[in-house]
Amino acid sequence: MRIALLGFGTVGKGVYEIIKKAKMQTQGLTVSRILIRSGKKKILPEMTDSIAEIINDDEVDVVVEAIGGIEPAHAYILEALNHQKHVVTANKAVIAKYLKEFTDVANKNHVKFYFEASVGGGIPWIQGLEKALRIDNVDCISGIFNGTSNFILDQMSKNNQSFAEVLSKAQKLGYAENDPSADIDGVDIANKLCISADIAYNIKISDRDRLPIFGIRNIRSEDVRYFERKGYLVKLLGLTHKLNNEYDYVVEPALMRKDSLEANTPGNYNLISLNGETIGKLDFFGQGAGMFPTANAVVQDILDIKENKQHLERNFDEKVQYDANIFQQDYVVRANFDVKDLFKDFDLIEEEQYVYVHQISVGKMHKLMDFVLEKDPRAFMAGLPDTIQKNVISNKEIVNQGVIA
Amino acid sequence: MRIALLGFGTVGKGVYEIIKKAKMQTQGLTVSRILIRSGKKKILPEMTDSIAEIINDDEVDVVVEAIGGIEPAHAYILEALNHQKHVVTANKAVIAKYLKEFTDVANKNHVKFYFEASVGGGIPWIQGLEKALRIDNVDCISGIFNGTSNFILDQMSKNNQSFAEVLSKAQKLGYAENDPSADIDGVDIANKLCISADIAYNIKISDRDRLPIFGIRNIRSEDVRYFERKGYLVKLLGLTHKLNNEYDYVVEPALMRKDSLEANTPGNYNLISLNGETIGKLDFFGQGAGMFPTANAVVQDILDIKENKQHLERNFDEKVQYDANIFQQDYVVRANFDVKDLFKDFDLIEEEQYVYVHQISVGKMHKLMDFVLEKDPRAFMAGLPDTIQKNVISNKEIVNQGVIA
Repeated sequence: MRIALLGFGTVGKGVYEIIKKAKMQTQGLTVSRILIRSGKKKILPEMTDSIAEIINDDEVDVVVEAIGGIEPAHAYILEALNHQKHVVTANKAVIAKYLKEFTDVANKNHVKFYFEASVGGGIPWIQGLEKALRIDNVDCISGIFNGTSNFILDQMSKNNQSFAEVLSKAQKLGYAENDPSADIDGVDIANKLCISADIAYNIKISDRDRLPIFGIRNIRSEDVRYFERKGYLVKLLGLTHKLNNEYDYVVEPALMRKDSLEANTPGNYNLISLNGETIGKLDFFGQGAGMFPTANAVVQDILDIKENKQHLERNFDEKVQYDANIFQQDYVVRANFDVKDLFKDFDLIEEEQYVYVHQISVGKMHKLMDFVLEKDPRAFMAGLPDTIQKNVISNKEIVNQGVIA
Repeated sequence: MRIALLGFGTVGKGVYEIIKKAKMQTQGLTVSRILIRSGKKKILPEMTDSIAEIINDDEVDVVVEAIGGIEPAHAYILEALNHQKHVVTANKAVIAKYLKEFTDVANKNHVKFYFEASVGGGIPWIQGLEKALRIDNVDCISGIFNGTSNFILDQMSKNNQSFAEVLSKAQKLGYAENDPSADIDGVDIANKLCISADIAYNIKISDRDRLPIFGIRNIRSEDVRYFERKGYLVKLLGLTHKLNNEYDYVVEPALMRKDSLEANTPGNYNLISLNGETIGKLDFFGQGAGMFPTANAVVQDILDIKENKQHLERNFDEKVQYDANIFQQDYVVRANFDVKDLFKDFDLIEEEQYVYVHQISVGKMHKLMDFVLEKDPRAFMAGLPDTIQKNVISNKEIVNQGVIA
């Protein structure tokens, strides 16, 4: 089986190294071509800067897209699929946006589009989820989907350092990018949660701009210390529930009890969980990023293609609607002005510089928090997932009652 | 695909219920026969007390062995395989003993023998391990493989209750058998660890009587309290390492730091971990027992057979030898007499009624502990896995040095 790598950064190099391992040499895998940027030095005989050369090479069976970003990754993946090449990628941004298109084009061309490495790196999460779905409906997915933000929160907690200090350390260690926004503002988690929900509910999440996302950019040492005194660690969670034909979806800081698995997920590890009817709660823990764990997941997909192991078929066309208000929970807010009036419709408790808002829907909370941020751009909030309750009277039902009355 | 259930206890009933689910009805699975004990009332039309009737039914594709124990399970599985029926089972005792024989007979008859549910119940552990092995050598497996013993230790810790009180509660809740020996003395864990090591190292562990196993029957509330003051929770672990062509294997109580995943594995949950060269540490957490999680894993195997998804091929004939002395760690011992002379070859620290033995090999420790138990049958010990080190000079090397000198 002949493999072309698009890109030779961390993931591309990792795949190249793993395929060269003694144990893999019996499997008949070869990297036959490597796409590099034009102008870059061709240090290996397989290297080329022509995508056309790869796409038109009839001997290439699998294309591994390891460029990252939206374009040209999107265009190259489509070209490869349309030239009857299987495609494997770890690129969550492009998958979150185009999963349905890639799947449709792959099906039309009778080839595979596999992407285990895109969520949770080396953790066999996508297949774990797909396997659970063979038997169960999955009504909750949650977890720590991003190692960089978890590393920052973990270090803030363990070393009593400020957000800025730890971020700078993470950048030096190569755990965080120079522009850390995707990791700390929750965009990376939102992509991974979107892919997971697409599969779990067999839908295509579009219109993602309206989905509630709140990152950890504003967290302070004093917040971490205060929450620890209350028995909690702060974690940046991705969370989605399904209830009948509606789902919610949120990325936000969450206060996790010290004896929870989430609170005990250290450093740059990931923890991803699902809940199914018969399987119950199932958790996957491991390295969510890094050269070899991620490359391992890419090679697992290549082996599945070679062994003709079908992944779960999805057409992403179920009628399940997003609803920001099907679940409610308690939140805690820190702002430099009095927020009590803004949240006056809810039971409030004040403690030190924090206000606890009792049983507010996720959608409502994030909307009100936008107002808070307008007045105090450094304000912070966190949810308390232990207090999550199904919203007994959803907004829609209230409207209906109004009409009936 | 027509399925025969041997046995209609917890697992058999669970499989029956899951296959009747709406989501499963599209998969074309049917339970066509159920073997019950002769004399029992046939409450369902599929029921029979004749194994011959099932074995000779050419329309049965898959036999699910859910009787438990060694015989007649072993004989029935062989008969089914020899009649070209696929076999799925959750019966760890019979697999730990006969995995190689079942695999050989299944291969000869071109049918499958699958057993995901045997280790970790609903946790996709066997496949997770098999998948890791496609790319990596796995050099460490560890975990909390038994929910009953974990429930007991968790309750002792949380409620400050005695071992006997919690055991009695677990028996009332149905978490523990009337004869709890397999769970609390480590036999159940030993079976699951044996199956895992057979697969990981591609060996057949025989001569299991000599393998070191120490259960939790002797643990006291005061031990739990003392270890907690030191920052540890006690967990009953199964643990195996591989080093070159040798492996070790132990079931024993272990002191786990409060912020470890193991210490935060509550109630009757399981946590099973592997370490691979490229994948790193990968952990699986979930319900290790119970009707539906276990039955879910059985049905997953049935679906793999239906979809012709091959599991990893193993012939269990690698030349890897058991060595009780390749790793060493610290231990703590409680006995009602002075054990310092017994352990005089090791650095010792005494504290309260406990003696810490510094860097002793697992094999040596368990041998010396046999002497301790002869004098004090209520003595207790626990390992400190944080202190594990490769035995730099193994016994074999010492012998060789002697010969050379």
